[in-house]
Amino acid sequence: MEKKAEHEIKIIGIGPGSGAAMTQEAAEALEESEVIVGYPLYLSLLKERFSGKEFLSAPMRQEEKRCRMCYEEAEKGKKTALVCSGDAGIYGLASLMYELLPQYPDCRLTVIPGVTAASSGAALLGAPLNHDFCAISLSDLLTPWEQIEKRLAAAAAGDFAIALYNPSSRKRADYLGRACRVLLENGVEPERPCGYVENIGREGTRKHICTFRELMETQVNMFTTVFIGNSQSEMIGDALVTKRGYRL
Amino acid sequence: MEKKAEHEIKIIGIGPGSGAAMTQEAAEALEESEVIVGYPLYLSLLKERFSGKEFLSAPMRQEEKRCRMCYEEAEKGKKTALVCSGDAGIYGLASLMYELLPQYPDCRLTVIPGVTAASSGAALLGAPLNHDFCAISLSDLLTPWEQIEKRLAAAAAGDFAIALYNPSSRKRADYLGRACRVLLENGVEPERPCGYVENIGREGTRKHICTFRELMETQVNMFTTVFIGNSQSEMIGDALVTKRGYRL
Repeated sequence: MEKKAEHEIKIIGIGPGSGAAMTQEAAEALEESEVIVGYPLYLSLLKERFSGKEFLSAPMRQEEKRCRMCYEEAEKGKKTALVCSGDAGIYGLASLMYELLPQYPDCRLTVIPGVTAASSGAALLGAPLNHDFCAISLSDLLTPWEQIEKRLAAAAAGDFAIALYNPSSRKRADYLGRACRVLLENGVEPERPCGYVENIGREGTRKHICTFRELMETQVNMFTTVFIGNSQSEMIGDALVTKRGYRL
Repeated sequence: MEKKAEHEIKIIGIGPGSGAAMTQEAAEALEESEVIVGYPLYLSLLKERFSGKEFLSAPMRQEEKRCRMCYEEAEKGKKTALVCSGDAGIYGLASLMYELLPQYPDCRLTVIPGVTAASSGAALLGAPLNHDFCAISLSDLLTPWEQIEKRLAAAAAGDFAIALYNPSSRKRADYLGRACRVLLENGVEPERPCGYVENIGREGTRKHICTFRELMETQVNMFTTVFIGNSQSEMIGDALVTKRGYRL
């Protein structure tokens, strides 16, 4: 019989922002942990609520270091949790943790899912992802831009509703516009209803509804999730709605 | 100044199954409600925990009736909640509620997001959706099959990881096989790692890892979510992992 790895690390999606939309399962897992590892901003949101824990962080771009910290703490016998914003398995660190796992044979991983920005942002705008949709990140730190363009083109060709993650950063201020041009070339019409949400679940949450034409000219910040309807999406009152097709 | 609609209806995603992965926000909203409307199976999971509430339901295929029940209860002045499995805005009833809203001008809607099956199923399998992904429903009750095929082809062409919702039913026992053939024709190779999860969050949760070739021959039930990796996905130990591209 195979020996079960003795140190469990929990990879926890805390949902958007400050954790009001955290699941009960995630909150219990954090309560039970001794060490909580994460990006500094997210830790600052958790320190008050989960006082008495050891908090460890490594800044942006040091994701591998953050993951290795978890393994090192777990190997000391400490109950260790890695927190990610949203869902740990959607643009979070779950996959990187699995990539490193073979180097730490005494450890095993449990992923606790959370509410991802596609869900939490959509809830604020209405129901923009209520039929088939794609999630696409515009960050080209780890993905060649050509691959991102290919996925944007396919998403438009398939008439998917779309959630865009990481639509901008200081170095990529024009990426949303570039992405929109690819979508336009692949059939997204200028009057398509769209929207975006800033600072989901944090202070300063703001939602915006606009046409695709307006979105093309919009500068968003890195704490924004962008939503593009499919060809059947509509504005109903001030809500962006992608219908499922019920015959009323 | 516009008059604010006086009756708020909360549309609540309770996450997978029995609600252990419900968000705290969702639980609080249910506590504050007087009437809880939903599909019978989900209500039976909530009745013990939220005792003392009025529970109203309408069976499968009567989604419009269920939505109208909410509006009618809200118009009586009762604090009304509509519950959906997973996330209410991802294949849930949020969009249908918005479609009906213009008929009930005294009502307004608040969507409370939940953990959708793409997230909760992925967490059990490893990290299959950790890069760009599509969610596609194989139900052709409301969507022409040609449209579903078009989206499957686009998802494969874009090399997205894929989560398939509603992959089967009694009348659609062969739909997963049909969908797989479309993916195969559009470049998904037979050795691609895949997986599926039955009864997420409920008794009898079971996860399965397989190749795409094996998935093509698999019969799944309607309480299953299917995951297909992208061309870079790998098995790491017994986990299905779609990498983000960190250079290690």
